[in-house]
Amino acid sequence: MEQAFLQFLATQKQTLSAEGVGIGDDAAVLAWPADSKLVVCTDLISDETDFHLADVTPQQIGRKALAINLSDIAAMACQPVGALLTLLLPQGEGSLQLAQGIYQGAAELGAQFACPIIGGDTNSWPGKVAVSVTVLGQSLAGKPLLRSGAQPGDAIFVTGQLGGSIWRHHLDFTPRVHEALQLTQACSLTAGMDISDGISIDLPRLCQQSDVGAEIDVRLLPLSADAQKMSEKTGKPAWWHGLNDGEDFELLFTVPQREADQLVAQWTNATPITRIGTIRHERELTMLGEDGTRQPLLPEGFSHH
Amino acid sequence: MEQAFLQFLATQKQTLSAEGVGIGDDAAVLAWPADSKLVVCTDLISDETDFHLADVTPQQIGRKALAINLSDIAAMACQPVGALLTLLLPQGEGSLQLAQGIYQGAAELGAQFACPIIGGDTNSWPGKVAVSVTVLGQSLAGKPLLRSGAQPGDAIFVTGQLGGSIWRHHLDFTPRVHEALQLTQACSLTAGMDISDGISIDLPRLCQQSDVGAEIDVRLLPLSADAQKMSEKTGKPAWWHGLNDGEDFELLFTVPQREADQLVAQWTNATPITRIGTIRHERELTMLGEDGTRQPLLPEGFSHH
Repeated sequence: MEQAFLQFLATQKQTLSAEGVGIGDDAAVLAWPADSKLVVCTDLISDETDFHLADVTPQQIGRKALAINLSDIAAMACQPVGALLTLLLPQGEGSLQLAQGIYQGAAELGAQFACPIIGGDTNSWPGKVAVSVTVLGQSLAGKPLLRSGAQPGDAIFVTGQLGGSIWRHHLDFTPRVHEALQLTQACSLTAGMDISDGISIDLPRLCQQSDVGAEIDVRLLPLSADAQKMSEKTGKPAWWHGLNDGEDFELLFTVPQREADQLVAQWTNATPITRIGTIRHERELTMLGEDGTRQPLLPEGFSHH
Repeated sequence: MEQAFLQFLATQKQTLSAEGVGIGDDAAVLAWPADSKLVVCTDLISDETDFHLADVTPQQIGRKALAINLSDIAAMACQPVGALLTLLLPQGEGSLQLAQGIYQGAAELGAQFACPIIGGDTNSWPGKVAVSVTVLGQSLAGKPLLRSGAQPGDAIFVTGQLGGSIWRHHLDFTPRVHEALQLTQACSLTAGMDISDGISIDLPRLCQQSDVGAEIDVRLLPLSADAQKMSEKTGKPAWWHGLNDGEDFELLFTVPQREADQLVAQWTNATPITRIGTIRHERELTMLGEDGTRQPLLPEGFSHH
């Protein structure tokens, strides 16, 4: 199977810079611009944990495996440069087709973000399918965006809409690479991350790294139609799903108070940005509930990590 | 389990450059020197395919997962810079200990080669253990060494001793990083790779990339004691095992004819280098057998890929 898949790979064109070397040597080679930081992230998804093989296409698996990594690169406000795709495949018939589909799903998404598949590793084993992706990115303007820079008084924003991503969004979301790069141009981002486990879990992580607290207003959360759908199913309020559901893969970021209004006024990207709260000096995390009362923000989401 | 492992990781010190960011953000960050190429490789090993969990320690698994990648960086004659360690672990008791052991085995080897663990991903699932490692490296002097530069007349060398690696060597081999860097200082390397599937499979790969052929002399192969041990077990000659056994992870490299003798004369590293043949213009691959007769070099090894 591996030989047949390598032959398939040889037919796939991946564009690399003139000095680059892609699949076919012991390692991929990339030229690196001076004064540009390298960022690198890796994430694995596996059958029965992150998807069910019977319910998805191979292309969706490959797309998602790359997309969650591109989301991490976006969270650093960096430009993706290339990806490594490692496959762990069940032995037997169908695994070549599975491998090709996963590759195609990843390669198609990569092409949309100038992120070719530059290497990887393919393995068969007596187990289920898992896909590990590593993405390299580079900082374009100044430093990569970290979780650690938020200051008391900063406005807290999110991109897009939140909640109910388990329905569909977790398989077809668009990593916010373009939005992140546009944000770095539009304002002085102080901290950022992507929302993978839900704001109620991820915002505390950002606050911990920044040594600050935060207060959000649940009435400001931009809710997806799927958050409403989940609400009808569970009986919990839609905002609860916006706050706690995982796999939104939107950006959570902070901006100095004085720039917040202007950022909103000037933002023209089709992906909305919404201010949901404020960074505070006190280390506690609070939220204003539906009725405006202040209460603790509890990590009720599902943690992947 | 993942949370407990992350807490463990937080106690492990990994040295990064002043500007670097390691485990704890969405991606790792590295400063990159001007004029230095980036190389990146990835390799996965899994239970029942590359090892048997009952027969090895977790530390050995982690060590091997990193070592095979460091061997690829050595094959490019580059300096490793950092590694990402992705774990796919069985659910249930013991997986935290397994994760810690794998990490420690990788981190200890990494420390020997100035290659800290700078990131990764940890996952539990209802399956067996697999470990995926990605290593970043940088070219120190000029370009990374590729498989594609061998010229007719070049001398073909290997490092170390070959054969029988399945006994023990595949778990405790030393990646030839230092030797590769020393070789780039000592001579004009034209092509190189690491021997993972045996010379009879790997040399044709190098020749194909270089658009050349080769002839080796099996009487020149530097044979390990384990090649002899295998020979006694299988009844095949020891040289056959030196030629065809996999997982030696020695370097296979080519050097201009005019530099070959001087390289041997001046080589002081404790790891031997041995000339085993010559690159030829004709695309065929041949070998001089035990009796000195020329015969085809057949790929009788075991291919991992």
